[in-house]
Amino acid sequence: MHERRIRFRSIWVVFAAVSFAFVVGVRAEEPIKPLLEEIEVNTKKLMLGRMLFHDPRLSKNNTTSCHSCHNLGSGGDDGRETFIGIGGEPGDINTPTVFNSDFNFKQFWDGRANTVEDLINTHVQSPTYLGSSWPGIVSKLYQHESYPSRFKAIYPDGIHHKNIRNALGEFIRSLTTPNSRFDQYLEGDDTALSTLEKRGYALFKSYGCVSCHQGVNVGGSMFRVFGAVNDYFKNRGNITDADLGRYNVTRKAADRHVFKVPSLRMAALTQPYLHDGSATTLRDAVDVMFEFQLGREAPDEDKEEIVLFIKALLGESTDLSP
Amino acid sequence: MHERRIRFRSIWVVFAAVSFAFVVGVRAEEPIKPLLEEIEVNTKKLMLGRMLFHDPRLSKNNTTSCHSCHNLGSGGDDGRETFIGIGGEPGDINTPTVFNSDFNFKQFWDGRANTVEDLINTHVQSPTYLGSSWPGIVSKLYQHESYPSRFKAIYPDGIHHKNIRNALGEFIRSLTTPNSRFDQYLEGDDTALSTLEKRGYALFKSYGCVSCHQGVNVGGSMFRVFGAVNDYFKNRGNITDADLGRYNVTRKAADRHVFKVPSLRMAALTQPYLHDGSATTLRDAVDVMFEFQLGREAPDEDKEEIVLFIKALLGESTDLSP
Repeated sequence: MHERRIRFRSIWVVFAAVSFAFVVGVRAEEPIKPLLEEIEVNTKKLMLGRMLFHDPRLSKNNTTSCHSCHNLGSGGDDGRETFIGIGGEPGDINTPTVFNSDFNFKQFWDGRANTVEDLINTHVQSPTYLGSSWPGIVSKLYQHESYPSRFKAIYPDGIHHKNIRNALGEFIRSLTTPNSRFDQYLEGDDTALSTLEKRGYALFKSYGCVSCHQGVNVGGSMFRVFGAVNDYFKNRGNITDADLGRYNVTRKAADRHVFKVPSLRMAALTQPYLHDGSATTLRDAVDVMFEFQLGREAPDEDKEEIVLFIKALLGESTDLSP
Repeated sequence: MHERRIRFRSIWVVFAAVSFAFVVGVRAEEPIKPLLEEIEVNTKKLMLGRMLFHDPRLSKNNTTSCHSCHNLGSGGDDGRETFIGIGGEPGDINTPTVFNSDFNFKQFWDGRANTVEDLINTHVQSPTYLGSSWPGIVSKLYQHESYPSRFKAIYPDGIHHKNIRNALGEFIRSLTTPNSRFDQYLEGDDTALSTLEKRGYALFKSYGCVSCHQGVNVGGSMFRVFGAVNDYFKNRGNITDADLGRYNVTRKAADRHVFKVPSLRMAALTQPYLHDGSATTLRDAVDVMFEFQLGREAPDEDKEEIVLFIKALLGESTDLSP
């Protein structure tokens, strides 16, 4: 996980490339694509963004940073069923990983933000997340010993809310997990996956999981109703606002219980699962998918092989954090 | 891994017991037995032993502690093919995990020590390990700000080499990994293992792995010649002293290439494998075992299921280290 750190150099950074694999031997016909290993990053912005990511000054009461819920050392999430808000109260939805965010077509479970910068804007100002305001943050950062000069060195207008989002966005875009064993397999290395993992991938496709979990992020490319075949919410005592999903954004009846299909790339590290955090293990999540999304039964070994495939999606973290 | 810490209390400690499982539902007929969860530990000795375990004063040049090679945060070994000696030179043999040492019938790959205290004695004085002497260590510890009073509080004769071994031994005996999912299964919980892991265990028995890797430590209970069916050393360029195994202790021809069968309980965390560290992954090690110990072929999926079973042997660490 650390090797990548030494690749950062000078102002502009290019992650070591295996993009030649697109020319030689890549399985171009597959519904899942490898993560790009080449990302251009402005390291000055990235290091400033990293500092902001870990800074609780972004929260109203100086208690909570982005990193509080998106722990980069443990998969980019918080390991909880639902997040803990700035007041210490439990939130209403499971924290997705921050890794590979920029590869999602929209942000949040309900897709309410289009870009990483929008996502930051919403987090900062939401009363349940950071409960803050941009003028309040700008004012706090101007009192800091090094933020004023760091911002000025990059942005002529210094500490400005759009510059905060820009630097944070640069850092978040840099958080990717390339070179998973599955990606190595996609790029032509047949030995990168075990026989059981290959079986798992074949089953992932043949059972139809791949119809939603596809593309570069193995998810994150479409909305789907949760409970496509059987009603997931039927036997639930109460339906929360969070359970309504995309409906909260569009107010269309057809969007009730519609969610962005989550990426599976970090699933090996980001239990519990589902928007409500109700699936404790990957196997539990697979069970729920078979029951409510596919409406099918499957032998235990098939589901276990699918879990082995999903775990092989875990790549190398590009996080620079200690 | 941390939950167990809070169970330490007062002078005498009893790890939370599931020993009643021996009465209800335990699979008593199985060739592998669960690790004991009840261990009596004198916490004063244990905390002193823990301090000594991490203290480089035990090495001749103050560079190396027990923890240098037996890293408790990463499986109790060093993750290298062979250990690094006090002079920085590569050693001749792979470092076994320190966890569950006391459950081995003898210590070291060649069984040259009978008890944990003997093992400490050998490590301290061996030129390639700590290169130290007991008088030298005792003298250094007497100059320490707290060792003299700590020893005196436990041992009437203060800092004495046998007391150093006693305290270190107490700590090392406390380093166990109970409550693995496999142990839970042995104790009657059928849901603790997946279908593939159960298959792996059945294959582990039917292929004959269990004829050597058996008992409470899934190994550590007998010597066996490495290359029982095919000659492992035939195509090796040079045979090292370490390759001679038990022969180094007995000087009997029949003990050439004879080694203590290693425990598999920590195998999930202690790559690389084998006495020479030549097997990079668990799958590599299983391949070697099939070729040289069993002389059999097996389908990939059988070997992969055996690996899944071995990984399910990983228990909860009782280490108190931060």
